Amino acid sequence: MLIVKKFGGTSVANKERIFNVARRCIEEYQRGNDVVIVLSAMGKSTDELIEMARDINPSPSKREMDMLVTTGEQVSVSLMAMAMDFMRIPAVSLNAFQVAMHTTHRYGNAKLKRIDTDRIRNELEQRKIVIITGFQGVDKFDNVTTLGRGGSDTTAVALAAALHADACEIFTDVDGVYTADPRYVKNARKLDCITYDEMLELATLGAGVLHNRSVEMAKKYGVQLVVRSSLNNNEGTVVKEGANMEKMLVSGVAVDKNAARIAVIGLKDEPGIAFHLFNALASKKINIDIILQSVGRDGTKDISFTVEEDEADEAIAVLQKNFPRSEYKAINMDKKVAKLSIVGAGMQTHSGVAATMFEALYDAGVNIRMISTSEIRVTVLIDEDNADKALRSVHDKFSLGD
Amino acid sequence: MLIVKKFGGTSVANKERIFNVARRCIEEYQRGNDVVIVLSAMGKSTDELIEMARDINPSPSKREMDMLVTTGEQVSVSLMAMAMDFMRIPAVSLNAFQVAMHTTHRYGNAKLKRIDTDRIRNELEQRKIVIITGFQGVDKFDNVTTLGRGGSDTTAVALAAALHADACEIFTDVDGVYTADPRYVKNARKLDCITYDEMLELATLGAGVLHNRSVEMAKKYGVQLVVRSSLNNNEGTVVKEGANMEKMLVSGVAVDKNAARIAVIGLKDEPGIAFHLFNALASKKINIDIILQSVGRDGTKDISFTVEEDEADEAIAVLQKNFPRSEYKAINMDKKVAKLSIVGAGMQTHSGVAATMFEALYDAGVNIRMISTSEIRVTVLIDEDNADKALRSVHDKFSLGD
Repeated sequence: MLIVKKFGGTSVANKERIFNVARRCIEEYQRGNDVVIVLSAMGKSTDELIEMARDINPSPSKREMDMLVTTGEQVSVSLMAMAMDFMRIPAVSLNAFQVAMHTTHRYGNAKLKRIDTDRIRNELEQRKIVIITGFQGVDKFDNVTTLGRGGSDTTAVALAAALHADACEIFTDVDGVYTADPRYVKNARKLDCITYDEMLELATLGAGVLHNRSVEMAKKYGVQLVVRSSLNNNEGTVVKEGANMEKMLVSGVAVDKNAARIAVIGLKDEPGIAFHLFNALASKKINIDIILQSVGRDGTKDISFTVEEDEADEAIAVLQKNFPRSEYKAINMDKKVAKLSIVGAGMQTHSGVAATMFEALYDAGVNIRMISTSEIRVTVLIDEDNADKALRSVHDKFSLGD
Repeated sequence: MLIVKKFGGTSVANKERIFNVARRCIEEYQRGNDVVIVLSAMGKSTDELIEMARDINPSPSKREMDMLVTTGEQVSVSLMAMAMDFMRIPAVSLNAFQVAMHTTHRYGNAKLKRIDTDRIRNELEQRKIVIITGFQGVDKFDNVTTLGRGGSDTTAVALAAALHADACEIFTDVDGVYTADPRYVKNARKLDCITYDEMLELATLGAGVLHNRSVEMAKKYGVQLVVRSSLNNNEGTVVKEGANMEKMLVSGVAVDKNAARIAVIGLKDEPGIAFHLFNALASKKINIDIILQSVGRDGTKDISFTVEEDEADEAIAVLQKNFPRSEYKAINMDKKVAKLSIVGAGMQTHSGVAATMFEALYDAGVNIRMISTSEIRVTVLIDEDNADKALRSVHDKFSLGD
């Protein structure tokens, strides 16, 4: 079997942890498997490099920033190879040039285009453990690029796809994917299995275990993911295609408190108003989530939407700049809101799921401010103060706990 | 004009110094010149990386060590590009892959084979300052290599040769090459000009300003070097071919206290003894400097030689292992010795230089233990305690001071 294993920065933050990861990978190797490891930079080292850069230049060029921060993973992979060598296991580290890991030209947020596998296969054939820098790539002009948030997960999934790996294990600090955040819901249960689509909805909703980009890639190339803890040998959660799986009605409940609601009240009811509004926001790269439009009684309409909390002020500024004061009655904003979502592939064929969720919220005395749905998700916007009790109520209503 | 400038680790050790170097290079750029900069890793950062490695593995593989330490120069060059960008000057950093800097396969001590200049020329044509990682290269299998001691100087000279640069400036913490070490000889004088051969002899003798490998390469490709201070704008010392220069009788005096003398007494006077002895030492990569053989009165011979002080004990062990105790009468060692050398291209055509040196030593009451000469150098081995007064006496005798 060929196994790709990805470890984040906390898993390699010091000597002891590096040896823990090394031991774990060597066990896999000694079972006769081929092992490819993807590593992030050690602990806070990327943050330290960024700080050094900002001290020199408050707005450094993205090209040079990528050149700088990619040294972090190169340090991790070489130290890991030394640790394995110390344990008498042949290992070799490879950076993005050596692999080679081809990406688009966009610094700081490049997309993987193609991975050469010759070098990796060659090293594996010599029975070496191959240790690869996550997060980084090289564009067609040999410039160093980085993949942006969740980059190392993406590297791991892309490698697993390119190498036709039998498994891609993403190691993290939790045991897997839970029915709800175990920090807030005591009886939250670890899921053995979840579909790509469910994982995507949960990732987008801030479950924080996997970045949606890596899940999308895993889905596209049919790479079976395992999310598991780097601290123990528990089984973890398998993320794979749903065809052969029991489709759970609801597999998880997620809360995202990093949301703000903006309402533009009393807009003239003319064609193109919505386009005009969201185009202005898009041009500033402000991400919009839920949108709700209602018609007012006096021939005007109200448009409400949610944005990430830290983009809310900029969104307001964009609106004030793009709309003459005469075009609307008022703009208001509420940062004390949270999004609560239920996700489950089974919703596609079962009705009444949304109604059950609303009942749970009613039971808990929680008012719903906005509603949004997809095929396998129902999201409501509620007051942030109600988020925790709403989460527990919904989790219990669907009997998700242990 | 195209100028290559090399700055060592202390010159880029912190933000302030990075900006000093940036300003200096920008002045050159603004005079209309093309500027290529070669940088070492910041301050003690290479030592810190080595320490991290040894903490993981006391004898790390050289391949992984090169992979690790080369991150240091990549940090320097990217931060320098950010500093220039902050000063609104277009700059780009390039690592060994990006250049590309082709070397042999020998990790930790690779030799430069070929430098591609397309990318550099392309960036220069766009009027960018090009900032290149010193010390590092890439072998034909895309492994990262380092050039060993004096590596960044070698990178700079090789780049100057490949780019047909008009000058190659090596910035250091002294004003140039002196007639003697100014820390010990108060009236030591800075030389305006010195030949490659003189510089080579001085470099080998531990003058410490330039590594001999870079001087050899400069001589081979006719690259004119300038050794100057990164702390001021003084002219520095030009190192170039001697044809058009006034050949100084003696251009400098150097002392090397890192020497030990080993004597093997009463060896049988048979053919092959010297070969046997030095072959054994060479196989352990122990560098021999001065060799002296004398015939004893009883049909035996004595062989004395000098080695670097920290290799002396190993040399003794090698000898004891390779020669049965019956083959010699005694082995003795003296670590309290120093080599004192005068260097000058003018010696080739002037006689009496050695005699003048010996007179100076006699004046100072210094006994000579061994003598060795080359075409442009005379070296004597003396007691280490006498080194400083011998240095001053010889320096004065040749009127080298201000």
